[in-house]
Amino acid sequence: MEIFLDCLPCLSRQVLEASRLVTSRTDIQADIMKETARLISDYERFRYSPEIGRALHQIVKKHTGVLDPYRDTKSKNIKNALDIYPSLKHFLFKKAERLYWALKISATGNVIDSAINNDINIIEEFIMKELEKKFTICDFERLEDKIKRARSLLIIADNAGETVFDRVLIEDLLYLDVTYAVRSEPIINDATIEDARASGLEQCAKIISTGCSAPGLILDECNEEFLNIFKNSDIVISKGQGNYESLSEQKKEMFFLLKAKCPAISENLGVKVNDYVLKWNGFNNV
Amino acid sequence: MEIFLDCLPCLSRQVLEASRLVTSRTDIQADIMKETARLISDYERFRYSPEIGRALHQIVKKHTGVLDPYRDTKSKNIKNALDIYPSLKHFLFKKAERLYWALKISATGNVIDSAINNDINIIEEFIMKELEKKFTICDFERLEDKIKRARSLLIIADNAGETVFDRVLIEDLLYLDVTYAVRSEPIINDATIEDARASGLEQCAKIISTGCSAPGLILDECNEEFLNIFKNSDIVISKGQGNYESLSEQKKEMFFLLKAKCPAISENLGVKVNDYVLKWNGFNNV
Repeated sequence: MEIFLDCLPCLSRQVLEASRLVTSRTDIQADIMKETARLISDYERFRYSPEIGRALHQIVKKHTGVLDPYRDTKSKNIKNALDIYPSLKHFLFKKAERLYWALKISATGNVIDSAINNDINIIEEFIMKELEKKFTICDFERLEDKIKRARSLLIIADNAGETVFDRVLIEDLLYLDVTYAVRSEPIINDATIEDARASGLEQCAKIISTGCSAPGLILDECNEEFLNIFKNSDIVISKGQGNYESLSEQKKEMFFLLKAKCPAISENLGVKVNDYVLKWNGFNNV
Repeated sequence: MEIFLDCLPCLSRQVLEASRLVTSRTDIQADIMKETARLISDYERFRYSPEIGRALHQIVKKHTGVLDPYRDTKSKNIKNALDIYPSLKHFLFKKAERLYWALKISATGNVIDSAINNDINIIEEFIMKELEKKFTICDFERLEDKIKRARSLLIIADNAGETVFDRVLIEDLLYLDVTYAVRSEPIINDATIEDARASGLEQCAKIISTGCSAPGLILDECNEEFLNIFKNSDIVISKGQGNYESLSEQKKEMFFLLKAKCPAISENLGVKVNDYVLKWNGFNNV
C-alpha cells in the first residue's frame, strides 16, 4: 500500500513523542525534528509507511543513543495485559461462539497501548467495553472454515501487550501448530521475541523473528525461516495496521485482524475510525 | 513566543488540509507536502509559529495558484455566524453581567470554524453550550476597570466568522472608539477587511488592516496606521492563539481573549485544552 500523505504529519508527531520518552533536552528533540522533516521531504524513496516509520525512529535512536525508547512503555503494557488476562479468559468462557470472540479478544489487544491511565481497574473497564464491540468487516465464516481443515497457523504479531491477548486466542487453538512471528529488533512499541516471551507465549506457540525490523512486515527483508513458514502455513493472520499496510497487496491468502486507528486506513478499508476488522484478502491458496 | 516542536506536525497537517481544499490532484498535494517538510527542517529561521505558518501556506498558494484556499470556508463560517447572531444577542440580553458575557461571546466565536456540520440548528446548539462555559483564566475585573475609564479600544481580530461574535461585543461598547484590525491579505481562515465588512462590523467599528499577512500579529511588519492605534489605544484586546503567540512577549498592556485549542498553548497558559481565557499580560500602561 502506498504511503498516505496523512501519514507524514502523523509520523512526525510520533517521532516527537518517542524523542520525549528518552530525553528532556529540547535541543536534541529539535535536532531530531529537523532531521525528521528532511527525511519526510524525501518520503517517496520509501515503499511503505512502516519503512519510513523505521527510518524516522532510527533518527531518535541515533540522536539519543537509546535503542529501545518504548522499553518501559512496552513492559507496562505487557504487565497491564497480564493483569487483565484472567478477565479475558473469563469473558471468553461465557461466550457461545468461542472462536469469534477469541479473535475479537486478539483484535482488541491493539488498544492496550492507548491506556494512558495507571489504574488497572479503569484500564480493565475500558478493555471490557471494547471487547463487546463486534467486527465491522467480518470474514469470520471463511476463517472458521479454514481453521476446521488446517494444521498450521502463522500469526504476524503487532504490539507488545497485545501479545497477551493473542495468547488467549492461541490457547483456544492448541490443536494447531502455531507460529508467532515478531519484529527482529525493537521498533516503536512493536513486540520482539523478548516481549512475546514475557507475555507467556512460549507455552503455546513457536516464537520466531520475521527478520524484519520495520513496524510492519516487509517480505523482502524477512529471514528464510520466516519465509518458509509464511509460505507453508495453512492460515496466516496478520495483525494491526502496520502489517496490513505492507502486506495488503500480497497475493497469498491472508486474514487481517486489526482495529482501524486512523482516518487514512479506515477510508482504505471502508470503515470508521475505531472499527474492528477481520478481513480475508480474497485469495484462495488451497 | 518560541515555536513549539508540537507546532511542526500540526502545521504540516494543516497544510495538507489546505491543499485538499483547493486541489484533488494528489501529485500536487505530494509536491506541497515535500516542500512543506523541507521548510519545516529549517524552522529555526522563523521567530514565531504564525511566521512559519504563513510561509507554509504560501507553498499551497504557489503550487495551486489559489490565493485564498479558505475563501468558501470563511464565507460559510460568516454565514453561519450571522444566522446565529440573533441568538447571541438574545443570550446576552438575558445576562446580568453583560460585559463578562459579551467578552465570552467574542471568545466563543473562535469555535465557529470547528462546526463541520451543515445543519445550522446543530451548530447553534453546539455554540450555545460553549457560550455557557466560563473563563478558566479570567482577568475580567482588570479589563472592566480599564473599560470604565477608557475612550478607545483596539481589537486585533482572529478568524472569519468569529468576526460576527466580536461584533456582538463591540455593539455593547459603542461608547468607545473601537478599531478592528485584520490581516492584510487572506491567510488560512483569518479575517480580512472583506470578511470584517461581510460580518457587519463597519456599522460599529473602524476596520483597518494591520499591514501584516501572517496568521498572527508580527509588529515589525505592521503599517504605520496600525502601529499608531496600537500605541495610543487605551485598551488592546488580542484575539486567538496566533496573535497570542506573536504578542505574548510585548511589554505593552494587553488582554488576550482566546480559546486554548492545542496542548502546547494550553500548557503555556496553564490551562486545559478547550478552556477559555481572558488574560491580562500584567503590564500597566496608564
